[in-house]
Amino acid sequence: MIKGVEGEITEISGNEVTLKAGQFYLNILCSTNTIKELSLSAKVHLLTYLSFSADRAPEIYGFKDRAEYNVFLMLLKANKIGPKMALKILSATSPEMLQKMIASKDISGLSRLPGLGKKTAERLVSELYDLVKDYAVEFPKELSDVSEDAVGALTALGFDMTSAKLAVNEVLKEQTVENTQELVRKALRKLNKTR
Amino acid sequence: MIKGVEGEITEISGNEVTLKAGQFYLNILCSTNTIKELSLSAKVHLLTYLSFSADRAPEIYGFKDRAEYNVFLMLLKANKIGPKMALKILSATSPEMLQKMIASKDISGLSRLPGLGKKTAERLVSELYDLVKDYAVEFPKELSDVSEDAVGALTALGFDMTSAKLAVNEVLKEQTVENTQELVRKALRKLNKTR
Amino acid sequence: MIKGVEGEITEISGNEVTLKAGQFYLNILCSTNTIKELSLSAKVHLLTYLSFSADRAPEIYGFKDRAEYNVFLMLLKANKIGPKMALKILSATSPEMLQKMIASKDISGLSRLPGLGKKTAERLVSELYDLVKDYAVEFPKELSDVSEDAVGALTALGFDMTSAKLAVNEVLKEQTVENTQELVRKALRKLNKTR
Amino acid sequence: MIKGVEGEITEISGNEVTLKAGQFYLNILCSTNTIKELSLSAKVHLLTYLSFSADRAPEIYGFKDRAEYNVFLMLLKANKIGPKMALKILSATSPEMLQKMIASKDISGLSRLPGLGKKTAERLVSELYDLVKDYAVEFPKELSDVSEDAVGALTALGFDMTSAKLAVNEVLKEQTVENTQELVRKALRKLNKTR
Repeated sequence: MIKGVEGEITEISGNEVTLKAGQFYLNILCSTNTIKELSLSAKVHLLTYLSFSADRAPEIYGFKDRAEYNVFLMLLKANKIGPKMALKILSATSPEMLQKMIASKDISGLSRLPGLGKKTAERLVSELYDLVKDYAVEFPKELSDVSEDAVGALTALGFDMTSAKLAVNEVLKEQTVENTQELVRKALRKLNKTR
Repeated sequence: MIKGVEGEITEISGNEVTLKAGQFYLNILCSTNTIKELSLSAKVHLLTYLSFSADRAPEIYGFKDRAEYNVFLMLLKANKIGPKMALKILSATSPEMLQKMIASKDISGLSRLPGLGKKTAERLVSELYDLVKDYAVEFPKELSDVSEDAVGALTALGFDMTSAKLAVNEVLKEQTVENTQELVRKALRKLNKTR
Repeated sequence: MIKGVEGEITEISGNEVTLKAGQFYLNILCSTNTIKELSLSAKVHLLTYLSFSADRAPEIYGFKDRAEYNVFLMLLKANKIGPKMALKILSATSPEMLQKMIASKDISGLSRLPGLGKKTAERLVSELYDLVKDYAVEFPKELSDVSEDAVGALTALGFDMTSAKLAVNEVLKEQTVENTQELVRKALRKLNKTR
Repeated sequence: MIKGVEGEITEISGNEVTLKAGQFYLNILCSTNTIKELSLSAKVHLLTYLSFSADRAPEIYGFKDRAEYNVFLMLLKANKIGPKMALKILSATSPEMLQKMIASKDISGLSRLPGLGKKTAERLVSELYDLVKDYAVEFPKELSDVSEDAVGALTALGFDMTSAKLAVNEVLKEQTVENTQELVRKALRKLNKTR
């Protein structure tokens, strides 16, 4: 019903923002990403989702960025994922990374996100894969074995599969490598930089 | 409760329109007929229907045209026809044609509308006939046999009964015909024009 | 929650009024008394009651006059009297007359109001009497027998007890009468004037 | 959802205030403390809590003062304490005193607040103690026996424990006392002043 609100930020506390719209001060729940982009007295237009249930006051979820908003709406399509859980997931990773993890069926990576257990990770992949498959991280055909081994080594070091794949892919795009060890070493340097 | 909203169209996507009313961006569901009449940045007044249910955020249905709005409200009076189904029916035909089909008890014509099965078509006729009977398509008494045969032939060709009746009626108003074949040929020309 | 709305009347149809408040056109249900006081394009402030239930869109009831609004709220305190029934009762008589009928325990008079059966009339009297007893129609002590007989005669003629009492009281305040017949004749003249 | 409203006070009746916000007159329930701070025609910003339940129109609770608002929200965290009860408790004592009573586990003092029985008092202490323990009234270590005796005497005189503790503490901060009797006498003088 209410897809967006325009107003002035009068308070930011944790993941809650107070937005003055006309005479009303609205309490809006936001992800960490959105909170980072907001500041007191700023005039903003937030994309909103109105969550309604029979015995509780409605809650408004707000997003600065369209991509995050769309991924939020996508998450709600999965069974047993309500707005609070969707916001929690979006506060743990970027919308793009999340889509890549689902598209890469990276159950272990997803399960490591705060609040997300293995079951929920599996449900996200099984119910949302078709909506995000274009985000799958592909390796150049001829180098897939070397890459797969490198990703294996990196995930053994504790990195989630999707980040490992992205780092390996980045190295392969920038330069040729002699062997898996060199690939792992260079990918590792990238991963440590983005930690 | 909210019978209309005035504001600026900021987004059109499928059958959903975003309307900026004061500080709020409202998400409004519209029929294909209404969508055709709307354009980005236009300032419009939409007649609205607020659909409420215990465990879902309210939804707003919007209409540019009073006749379509009234037929929408009429459809909701029929059992098991909710706002989504009513909008679907109104996106498949014009309000006027729909009333004619119900008034002519054109079950087969109604059943061909997307999303409308025979049972629903029968329910529309049985529950709403009294509200639309003035829309019934009548033939001049003296020519009713010739007309009925012509309509029979046209429906055999796949046209819904109401369209066939309207075309036959139009021909009879414009000119005299020798026989049923001539009536069918001239009505067919009209029907093919409006397809 | 919403105790009043200010705006412009854009439509009056039966007992429904459309009020433009900011960008929103509100559909407001009114009593016949309130409708009589409203006109198209008039800028008005209506006292409102917001009726909410789990599976239907909220409805707004609007009142031009504070006394009628208070009696409406009072009626809602009686068991099984919802806003629709309360509005119906208030469209059948004035707020003041209604309070007098309840205060005079005029079950037969109340039962004659459209939509009000004997059971509901009894419930109104039993549950609301304490709230309106000051409105009871009293006769001057010394004339109570003559008055009671006159009221009896008038109710036999089909007048409700409260109207009969009011007319008899009015006559007694204006002049002295010889006997019950004279009192009945003069009270009858008053009652026929106000029909 | 609605954390605050700005508007003009148009009516004050008992613990209900009518606030004009744009075209809407909102009915807002307030505590005695808040009512004291409001006056007709004043332009105010009230912190609000929107109470929703499936079969009743939503209700708005309004607070002039942030501390009172926060204690109200805290009370709602306790089991079986709804907004009406929370407002009643806050109309019986100041937010600060309430937190001190809970922090001092002053069951008898809490039970004396209108509408609060022993069971509810115990629940407040058991469920909210952790949120308010910093408000506990502490005695300087070396004087704790003398103080405890004085508090005992004062509560025997009918004062709630927290008020007694506060008075005793105040005396001890201002001056040294010879014995418990002197401490009781001076604390009593303070308590009678604030009654």
